[in-house]
Amino acid sequence: MSYNNLITQLFDINAVKFGNFTLKNGLKTSIYIELDPVISFPHILETVAKNFWELVQDIPADRLCGVPYTAVPIATCLAQEHNIPMLLHRKSSNAISGSFNSGQTCLVIEDIVTTGNSVLETITDLQQAGLMVKDIVTFLDREQGGKELLAEHGYHLHSLFTLSQFIVMLEKAGKIEQREPLHNPA
Amino acid sequence: MSYNNLITQLFDINAVKFGNFTLKNGLKTSIYIELDPVISFPHILETVAKNFWELVQDIPADRLCGVPYTAVPIATCLAQEHNIPMLLHRKSSNAISGSFNSGQTCLVIEDIVTTGNSVLETITDLQQAGLMVKDIVTFLDREQGGKELLAEHGYHLHSLFTLSQFIVMLEKAGKIEQREPLHNPA
Repeated sequence: MSYNNLITQLFDINAVKFGNFTLKNGLKTSIYIELDPVISFPHILETVAKNFWELVQDIPADRLCGVPYTAVPIATCLAQEHNIPMLLHRKSSNAISGSFNSGQTCLVIEDIVTTGNSVLETITDLQQAGLMVKDIVTFLDREQGGKELLAEHGYHLHSLFTLSQFIVMLEKAGKIEQREPLHNPA
Repeated sequence: MSYNNLITQLFDINAVKFGNFTLKNGLKTSIYIELDPVISFPHILETVAKNFWELVQDIPADRLCGVPYTAVPIATCLAQEHNIPMLLHRKSSNAISGSFNSGQTCLVIEDIVTTGNSVLETITDLQQAGLMVKDIVTFLDREQGGKELLAEHGYHLHSLFTLSQFIVMLEKAGKIEQREPLHNPA
C-alpha cells in the first residue's frame, strides 16, 4: 500500500514540523510529527482511522480505549465504523467510563508513542477497573523507548510507522530533500 | 419526532438510573440520567449524534469542541458525519489542540449540563486561545442552574431535553409508572 497521499496530507496540515529532535538511536533529525491537527480535518482523520484498522482488525478485543486526548477521536472513528464498544479514560479522575465487564479485553489506541508513559497511565487505570490489556496500536512510534518500556510491562506495541520509517517515506514523497547525516565526515 | 426508541435504548443500557435527585425547581425525582454508557454502544452513540444534529445544523460555527470526556466522541461523530473541523480541550493542560485561526467561532458540545461549570472551563480555554463562543448544545439540561449561569456569561445553552421533559418522555414510554408527587397530600 502506498502512503504517499497520507504523508502529503499530513505535511500540508502542519502535522510534520521542523525542529531539533534526537531519536533513541542517536540519529539527529529536524523532523517532528504530531497528529493533533488531524482532528480538524475530518477526511484526514478518516484516512488515519482507516490506516489504524489495518492493524486493529487482526487483534481480537472486547473494547477499544483511546489514550487522551488525540487518540479519542481516532478510537471513536474505529468504534463507529466497525461497531466496536468503546471506553473512555478520564485522565483527571483515573476513572474508566463506558459499559464493560471485569475480565474483558481492551485494545488501547494511541496516536503517537514517545516514552510510553501516557499509554502506561491509561493501561494502569483500565486494569484497575478489571479490564485485561495486552496490545496497543499507535500511528507512530517515535522510537524514544516507548516500545521497550511497554514490553517490560508485558504489553505489545504495534505501530503503523516508526519515526525512521516515516522519515524515509517523507523522503520518498519528496517532502524532505535528504536525511541529515549521522555525523559530519571530516 | 418520536424519541420513544431512543428513550428505550438509553433505559436498556442503564443510562437512566434510580437514586435521589432534586431538581432546581425543588421537584424530587428518583431518576438520574448519564450518557457515559452510550460510548460502548456504537449504534446508540450514532442515534444520539443524529439527535444532536437537529440542533447543531442551525447554528453556524467554524469549529466544534466537545467538553471532556463523554461529549468528545459525540462531537467526533458530528464532525465526521457532517465534515466539520473539530478541536480538543486538553483539560489537564488547559490547552486547545487542533487547527484554527483566532476569531473563528466554536460551537461547544456537552452531553449533560448540570451546574454549567465544566462547560464554562472549556469555554474559558477556547476564548483564551482566541476562539469566539456563543452557543452550547447539550443532550440534557439537568435544570441545576447551568443554563442560567451560562446566560449570565453571555452564552446560549440549547438542549435537546430538560430533565423535566425527559421524565415526561420516560412516563410516556412506559419506563416509569408515575412521577413522584411534589409533596404528599395530607
